[in-house]
Amino acid sequence: MRATDIIEKKRDGGELTAGEIRWFVDGYTRDEIPDYQAAAWLMAVFLRGMSARETLDLTQAMADSGDRLDLSPVIPYAVDKHSTGGVGDKVSLVVLPLVAAAGVPVAKMSGRGLGFTGGTIDKLESIAGYRVQLSDEDFMQQVRDYGIVLCGQTKSLAPADGKLYALRDVTGTVPSLPLIASSIMSKKLAAGANAIVLDVKVGKGAFMKGVDEARALAQIMVGIGVGAGREMVALLSDMNQPLGYAVGNALEVREAIDALRGDGPPDLREHCLVVGGHMVRLGRQDTRAGALDEAIAELADLMDNGGGLAKFRELVSAQGGDVSMIDDPDRLPRARLVEDVPAGADGFVAEVDALTVAQASLELGAGRARKSDPVDPAVGVVVRCKVGDRARADDPLFTIHANDEAMLARARELLRQAVRFSESRPQPLPAFYDTLYKEA
Amino acid sequence: MRATDIIEKKRDGGELTAGEIRWFVDGYTRDEIPDYQAAAWLMAVFLRGMSARETLDLTQAMADSGDRLDLSPVIPYAVDKHSTGGVGDKVSLVVLPLVAAAGVPVAKMSGRGLGFTGGTIDKLESIAGYRVQLSDEDFMQQVRDYGIVLCGQTKSLAPADGKLYALRDVTGTVPSLPLIASSIMSKKLAAGANAIVLDVKVGKGAFMKGVDEARALAQIMVGIGVGAGREMVALLSDMNQPLGYAVGNALEVREAIDALRGDGPPDLREHCLVVGGHMVRLGRQDTRAGALDEAIAELADLMDNGGGLAKFRELVSAQGGDVSMIDDPDRLPRARLVEDVPAGADGFVAEVDALTVAQASLELGAGRARKSDPVDPAVGVVVRCKVGDRARADDPLFTIHANDEAMLARARELLRQAVRFSESRPQPLPAFYDTLYKEA
Repeated sequence: MRATDIIEKKRDGGELTAGEIRWFVDGYTRDEIPDYQAAAWLMAVFLRGMSARETLDLTQAMADSGDRLDLSPVIPYAVDKHSTGGVGDKVSLVVLPLVAAAGVPVAKMSGRGLGFTGGTIDKLESIAGYRVQLSDEDFMQQVRDYGIVLCGQTKSLAPADGKLYALRDVTGTVPSLPLIASSIMSKKLAAGANAIVLDVKVGKGAFMKGVDEARALAQIMVGIGVGAGREMVALLSDMNQPLGYAVGNALEVREAIDALRGDGPPDLREHCLVVGGHMVRLGRQDTRAGALDEAIAELADLMDNGGGLAKFRELVSAQGGDVSMIDDPDRLPRARLVEDVPAGADGFVAEVDALTVAQASLELGAGRARKSDPVDPAVGVVVRCKVGDRARADDPLFTIHANDEAMLARARELLRQAVRFSESRPQPLPAFYDTLYKEA
Repeated sequence: MRATDIIEKKRDGGELTAGEIRWFVDGYTRDEIPDYQAAAWLMAVFLRGMSARETLDLTQAMADSGDRLDLSPVIPYAVDKHSTGGVGDKVSLVVLPLVAAAGVPVAKMSGRGLGFTGGTIDKLESIAGYRVQLSDEDFMQQVRDYGIVLCGQTKSLAPADGKLYALRDVTGTVPSLPLIASSIMSKKLAAGANAIVLDVKVGKGAFMKGVDEARALAQIMVGIGVGAGREMVALLSDMNQPLGYAVGNALEVREAIDALRGDGPPDLREHCLVVGGHMVRLGRQDTRAGALDEAIAELADLMDNGGGLAKFRELVSAQGGDVSMIDDPDRLPRARLVEDVPAGADGFVAEVDALTVAQASLELGAGRARKSDPVDPAVGVVVRCKVGDRARADDPLFTIHANDEAMLARARELLRQAVRFSESRPQPLPAFYDTLYKEA
């Protein structure tokens, strides 16, 4: 085979064979196909698209480019989750301990934040000592011993995806549905899950701005999962306003602890119970019929009786983290400057723009502009209103946590533009827009 | 500016500004923009196209990427020609001496062959001693002294084009009309011509297989030339069968000498007179009206009275070539093995597939499969029939000139499939399909 033949076939709108896709992905992973040929191919894929069959073959080729984790010795049926990324999305921190506390083991590898706010791994690193890098052996041992593990992706997990993603980032080929779907799903397949709950975010603070687009992405990912023999649930969830209140790494850990105590924001609670409910239902293969409501009720109990929090403490302890920070969240990293941003006008909150809130938290140092940038665990924004709330001019709508006056000023400026008011009360935003199922 | 913004704008079908195009081309020429970003951009241009304005701006940016030759001190009004490349195309070797002999000075830089057969420079190198590399000073001096120069392109001529062409070659982005047109025209603009005669080949042995496609390319190139203040003539000429009889470097030089003696193949004679007639007419700005026929008649005289041949001898001498090879073409490099290929059947010749003849000459070593391959000046194929001729089974249709038995066998096999016969006499192929003019 020749790389140019494969580029030209896709350029002209042809459907690549599984063999051609695998040859190209393997050649690129091994540095035998240069970046410039992969870049031309990615742009051709971007503009010509990929059939469902091609997308599945691309995903499998990327999943096979490194080690595939086999969880079967420790988890007979592994359930994983993935969020496409949102503002204030601390769901994994809440859901994984709850699901594990319900007796369904969870073994998850998470990413760092590439966008405006930190990822799950960045958030966990605000807990002193928490080890995010685990060997495959430690990973398996911890699932066996505790029924829960939550760490960063190993380098051997779908290396083709890591290489292609970095290239897409600098060649204008990121926002392609088959490329996004195959990138996400290649890591999920390689990580050994039997069933996957996808949380596809929709709205201003998400990559997918509209429900139709998000549904199209969800359908492609569900198709890949089913094609690879997985059971799939995809939720389309709102990301026009931030999820919960806290946006920022330690602030979100603190809010996750609140939620695990039964004291979290109502929208976050509902969101976590639904995501977790699906995971528990899928994980209990023998008792599925009508079991979603029961699973949700069970997880709600584990929120209210402290069972989930105890599991989170166990997770932090197992991965070397300072559990005193869980017992007393005041010990988590705290910012030097704390300042409220008042509403400035009376009215109903019609919009809390998640993207602007994310930009403010990026200005404070909570996220990364470049992959190599460090994050400040202490800083961020606490949102104190939701769409549909009534606000008076003096009410604080945001609390800024900053470590630098200039950064604080920039964040304040942004946040003043993040909220839109209306005279009549608007409908609150829904938590979910749709759910896609595909079970065995 | 950021390279990714420019890539994304073109990816989404936007029209790039002159400033964006120049920034991208300059950055790539200076190695500040990496190959992979240029590759993604080229594929986006390939699939999204370019407006006439963008194509002109791209051409100008590439022409400005190196030195622009100013011929005005030696040629008040410079006329150039360019062929898009065909099989047996030795037109420059015949036309340039004729035009110069008619008193219109010609200063041309030519390329090497990238396809199946050698380019003008490869052909000239079959004359012992002929210097194809001239400094800008020598180039100007020779035009001043002899009114004719024919050499290879200097490295400083549109270096952006050289770099982008090499990248297109390995990224499946060669056959794009705006990219082809801007590549050709950038070199013509940089080489300082005031008027340009384009010979756009159409047919099996050409890059453009159909007249419509060739006309589209010609129109884009004429548009670029006019936009850059040049006068333009574009001829669409047949390349379904080889031009003239000889295909191979020294064989073509020999046939060019025959033509300059008035003894060349009729189709080559007609072709050269028309191309040369346009050049002479454009070069004599003061006497244009109805002057094409007169110019053609004048060039025909220079073929028949040896004036053109004397000028060719002068050119070869000026560039250090062995003129005894011009006086006695038997002294040109000759192949060891010469073998006829008979028709094998009675009938009328309905097709002489130029592409297959080119492949045969490539098998013999007359062309390059890779840019770095050497060419054998002596080998090639002499075609001995034209579409419309009657052939009997014993008539030789080709004469193979080879230096290796195995190569000869492969060429023989190909040539047996190059000719198609019919029972009734087919129409001869036209020399030209169309002519496009755009004068000041």
